Amino acid sequence: MLFLLSLFHADEGMWMPEQLPGMGEQLVEMGLELPVEQLADTTAQPLGSVVSLGGFCSASFLSSEGLLGTNHHCVSGFLQVNSTAEDNLARDGYLAASREEELSAGPAARIYVVESIEDVTERVNAQVRRWTGDGQRYERVERAKKELIAECEERPNRRCEVAAFYGGQQFRLISKLEIQDLRIVYAPPDPVGNYGDEIDNWMWPRHAGDFGLLRAYVAPDGASAPYSEENVPYQPPSWLTVSTEGVREGDFVMVAGYPGGTYRYRTARNIRFAAEVSYPELIAFIGRAKGILQEQSSSDPEAAARLAAPIGWMGNSEKYYQGNLNNFGSSGVVDRKQREWDETMAWVNSDRVNAKLYGPAFEELDALDAEKEVGFRRSLYTKWSVHLSDLLAVAHEGYRFAVERAKPDLDRDRGYQDRDVERTSQSWTQLDDTLWLPADRALLELVLTQHAGLGPDQQSAELSAWIEEHGGIESALEELYTEPSLATAEGRLALLDMDREAFEHSDDPWLTLAVTIESYLASERVREEERRGAMLRLMPLYMDALKASREQVYPDANNTLRVTVGHVKGYSPADAIWYRPQTTLSGMVAKAGDAPFDAPPRFLDAAKEPEKSAYYNSELGDVPVNFLSTLDTTGGNSGSATLNSKGEFVGFLFDGNYESMSADWLFDPALTRSIHVDVRYALWILEAEGAEHLLAELGVN
Amino acid sequence: MLFLLSLFHADEGMWMPEQLPGMGEQLVEMGLELPVEQLADTTAQPLGSVVSLGGFCSASFLSSEGLLGTNHHCVSGFLQVNSTAEDNLARDGYLAASREEELSAGPAARIYVVESIEDVTERVNAQVRRWTGDGQRYERVERAKKELIAECEERPNRRCEVAAFYGGQQFRLISKLEIQDLRIVYAPPDPVGNYGDEIDNWMWPRHAGDFGLLRAYVAPDGASAPYSEENVPYQPPSWLTVSTEGVREGDFVMVAGYPGGTYRYRTARNIRFAAEVSYPELIAFIGRAKGILQEQSSSDPEAAARLAAPIGWMGNSEKYYQGNLNNFGSSGVVDRKQREWDETMAWVNSDRVNAKLYGPAFEELDALDAEKEVGFRRSLYTKWSVHLSDLLAVAHEGYRFAVERAKPDLDRDRGYQDRDVERTSQSWTQLDDTLWLPADRALLELVLTQHAGLGPDQQSAELSAWIEEHGGIESALEELYTEPSLATAEGRLALLDMDREAFEHSDDPWLTLAVTIESYLASERVREEERRGAMLRLMPLYMDALKASREQVYPDANNTLRVTVGHVKGYSPADAIWYRPQTTLSGMVAKAGDAPFDAPPRFLDAAKEPEKSAYYNSELGDVPVNFLSTLDTTGGNSGSATLNSKGEFVGFLFDGNYESMSADWLFDPALTRSIHVDVRYALWILEAEGAEHLLAELGVN
Repeated sequence: MLFLLSLFHADEGMWMPEQLPGMGEQLVEMGLELPVEQLADTTAQPLGSVVSLGGFCSASFLSSEGLLGTNHHCVSGFLQVNSTAEDNLARDGYLAASREEELSAGPAARIYVVESIEDVTERVNAQVRRWTGDGQRYERVERAKKELIAECEERPNRRCEVAAFYGGQQFRLISKLEIQDLRIVYAPPDPVGNYGDEIDNWMWPRHAGDFGLLRAYVAPDGASAPYSEENVPYQPPSWLTVSTEGVREGDFVMVAGYPGGTYRYRTARNIRFAAEVSYPELIAFIGRAKGILQEQSSSDPEAAARLAAPIGWMGNSEKYYQGNLNNFGSSGVVDRKQREWDETMAWVNSDRVNAKLYGPAFEELDALDAEKEVGFRRSLYTKWSVHLSDLLAVAHEGYRFAVERAKPDLDRDRGYQDRDVERTSQSWTQLDDTLWLPADRALLELVLTQHAGLGPDQQSAELSAWIEEHGGIESALEELYTEPSLATAEGRLALLDMDREAFEHSDDPWLTLAVTIESYLASERVREEERRGAMLRLMPLYMDALKASREQVYPDANNTLRVTVGHVKGYSPADAIWYRPQTTLSGMVAKAGDAPFDAPPRFLDAAKEPEKSAYYNSELGDVPVNFLSTLDTTGGNSGSATLNSKGEFVGFLFDGNYESMSADWLFDPALTRSIHVDVRYALWILEAEGAEHLLAELGVN
Repeated sequence: MLFLLSLFHADEGMWMPEQLPGMGEQLVEMGLELPVEQLADTTAQPLGSVVSLGGFCSASFLSSEGLLGTNHHCVSGFLQVNSTAEDNLARDGYLAASREEELSAGPAARIYVVESIEDVTERVNAQVRRWTGDGQRYERVERAKKELIAECEERPNRRCEVAAFYGGQQFRLISKLEIQDLRIVYAPPDPVGNYGDEIDNWMWPRHAGDFGLLRAYVAPDGASAPYSEENVPYQPPSWLTVSTEGVREGDFVMVAGYPGGTYRYRTARNIRFAAEVSYPELIAFIGRAKGILQEQSSSDPEAAARLAAPIGWMGNSEKYYQGNLNNFGSSGVVDRKQREWDETMAWVNSDRVNAKLYGPAFEELDALDAEKEVGFRRSLYTKWSVHLSDLLAVAHEGYRFAVERAKPDLDRDRGYQDRDVERTSQSWTQLDDTLWLPADRALLELVLTQHAGLGPDQQSAELSAWIEEHGGIESALEELYTEPSLATAEGRLALLDMDREAFEHSDDPWLTLAVTIESYLASERVREEERRGAMLRLMPLYMDALKASREQVYPDANNTLRVTVGHVKGYSPADAIWYRPQTTLSGMVAKAGDAPFDAPPRFLDAAKEPEKSAYYNSELGDVPVNFLSTLDTTGGNSGSATLNSKGEFVGFLFDGNYESMSADWLFDPALTRSIHVDVRYALWILEAEGAEHLLAELGVN
């Protein structure tokens, strides 16, 4: 029974490279001109040139000298590190006129180059028996993964991970070279790279120059090393050829990068809860938090500089959740998922063998979802307290380190092993550049107030008791923010020397609050581990049932290298409207005005004479700026190389359209689109900047 | 020198019927299938079926029994007259199940059927000599026009007018049959006829059912007569054939109706002043006035019912002026007009004969504009005082009648002759249905406050003195609105029996205020008459210069019957966006929700099953709703018949797109579009209402 076949669409799918050879015919039919075996080889061009910036973004090598292309919004954190109120690179952008001027992206910046991928499913499951309890199953799997990682990381400069595919049906050990010296080569001014900012975010038509150039450096002997003046540009094993021909409507295109996460196989119940409860709650809450930061920014330029990043991600999240809700409604996603689920259940129940094999698993999955819904709000506000307040996050992380440090390294929770200490102390040090106490306090007040507003059975009893002991929220905040020791890097780093005892007997309110919140979060984690252990047991059955009914199934995105294939194509967002798939400089100029459309005059002036540029396209009568594709991408894909049918670099993937937000749940071929910077616009920007040396290095001049 | 030729475009032009035969070849090439002589005949089908609702709207006969099609927004005033808080026809619409149920549109409702058009230029100018002064020129022309009208109106039930074409180069006497008994046959509910209201107003994509059906009634002997139960349906000499085939993209279409006014030949200086001074001032002022009415409406349903109409026109005006400003900017209208002017001046000056003939006229036109700019604000707020306050408008009009009545009828200003008394007393009586004193007071306060805020040299000295005498604005308002006699119809009608003396010696503050304001307005009128006299002298020269340089020139719209020709066509409102020219039921359903998108469920339910309708179009896979055309239309054209190449009725013209607002100044072939109700949507609505008898009368069932 192929009842789910109709859902499969050529453009849907974040394919693992190893799946591509099996799709050879289809890919050729779609337009691929590269041998599919070459495309599937993760060590050859083009995939060998594609790297991760560590979860939040992708990038690719564009020259033999370690030049990396990614998004402007992926390098804005690095610009932030180099920004002051007087010299605001995050706003003005940066062009290194020579190698010497390339700026360190900061000690926390990393890129990861995949060196090998190995199936380790058997080793991960070696200690798991059919009768193993759920909590124990999770622990054994985690332990096996940690052992594999530790073994793998014995080689120097390696970062390894064990990634779960198909909800834990398969595990792969991925070994990556970690490069620690990353430098900023070029970033456009914010009103060019981020043209339209929140107004245009997720929107089409789009006119963003959302690209930036970095360079990877290594020690003179070629080994990965932290920033040093002696370091030399990294020589990648392969790099992409930049095409100046760009793309046209209908062209075959691919994206290779590291998509973060999708929920394509979640239950109908799960998506209904998101639509009706969790997303509306998140939208309201994030909106309030963002409002607080915006108000503080409006009155103080220093606050504005420090809070730009959180305001940015909050705005993005808010729009994302709201867009999801809108799309849930307009595409009938909830009903479609419910129909899928009902049909799958009907299939399961139509056959006695299937019913016995899969039936209980489906029921249990539904029950697990139901259980999670109950504690949603308590869990939300408790977790957000250590997410929104930087100081509480530090105190909490410090306590977690202290607790975990008492265990043998391999028994510790991920993120709290010896390998994590250095990165943590670096990020605590860098907090000096972004911490803004009035915002920290206001956000903590907001989250505590939200928590206090829950029904008594929904509150965390531990947290409520702590607040009461401290005389209520107002008085607790006064105590917390009176000369907090964690406001200095020294004070923060001192936490790494404290043991559990010291935390639990301290009378610093930050530490007692952290211990209190952790006592709730720890019990939450135990429940979560049991749930995950159960999922490890159930998901393979669930996925088997789905695979039995589809031609080709790809695993949900999980921050591993994926390839997606499709075409340059417009779409109809509403009755009588057709969005063409390419924008131009004239459209950029037409939007120019007040912030966030305040591109500097040097760009606007050049944009008014497109025919003078080497990247002028006579068919469009202009220089192309952004384009749409049918490619299946998501967060983490940002900065991904966009390739043409020959595997040449033609653009920077940087966003999805508004209608694509719910694509994390359900891909809709009619509406889901990715948005790319046309490489010719990036080259035009470099041309407008007079960056001849970079155009030469990119091989286009 | 044909330097202005490039401005001429097939779709531009509001042609007088007599111009059409000269354009025969072009019309056939565009797609006309009707003999052009038939199209030019204003007494034959189709033009003979096209009537005016008296300046603000057009309509057309759709059956032999006097059934008239026009826009919903053209009949909403008639619905208002029949509405109460309990039985709100303006909101709920109305369907007469039989002739007996057809409701009177009120004593002020009229339609005008053109019977003859005659060139009277010579008679109008008979008393004008080259040396006649400007003020006297205006008076002599006006007097000649009045004589012509009086002569023409000697026949019963005739309304006549002398219309100026090409700025007074030509005059035509238009004789019209006036029908006084108009009844409401069908109007959709407001959230269908006015779907999207202010949000969608001027917008595309659009989904409005903006049509309504009226019926003209006459006395049993066929003579025009006021409403009477004995009256019978009027039998028009011709009526339009309704096509159920509708239109497709690219189809040839025409609109025949009564466009109100355009300024296609204004000077560059004039448009610059609008862009920089007058439109911004109007936008700010109307916005404040609308805000006041909205606030009052929000707290009282009776206020909401009475203020809906002024809120509507204020919102429309505000959007219109703002849209004009936006388009001035985006289409560079000011610069283009300046270039035109500069080129014309260059042409004038390139030849000694031309320079002598036209040069002084062009200079004087510029000087007249300059003079008008000086008193703009004083004039604005003084005029708006008698426009915004219904009571002050009545007092002022009463005083004007009293003053004019002392003169022989033909010497009086237009609007204050014996022929105007009846209509005035009817509209003063009907004021009972719409007057809302708190709003009247708040608006008068606003306009007086605005006036008081002008610099002393910008204020009207007369008005300022009156305010001071009455102890300032607050105290004056208190006096005015304490039991005002004009708040009753009786009190208002009594004004028509008062003479000038009585007004000028009254101590009713309304009358003294009216006399005060009139003393300023009267001097303004003298200046205005001199200006108009000058224009009568200058415009013929100006138009001659323009005609010398163009292939075909049409006169500015002036509320006379015009035909415009073009095609069904989409457009690109911005980079990468293409608007298709047809919308559908599915798009209407997609917008449904809160007001103003709260179409009643009976329509939404039917809309979800379009294939069940007789008006389903398989090509669109839906029932068409609205369409776009390249036709050149403006206010007054509302309700105009839209005809296909065979002259059959295919839709109701009801709006222009946002980008067309500035088309009154400059027609832009790339962006100017008209918006129509597809006749199939109107028929679908009647089908959804179960109005089989009307579908039968329209000949489609």
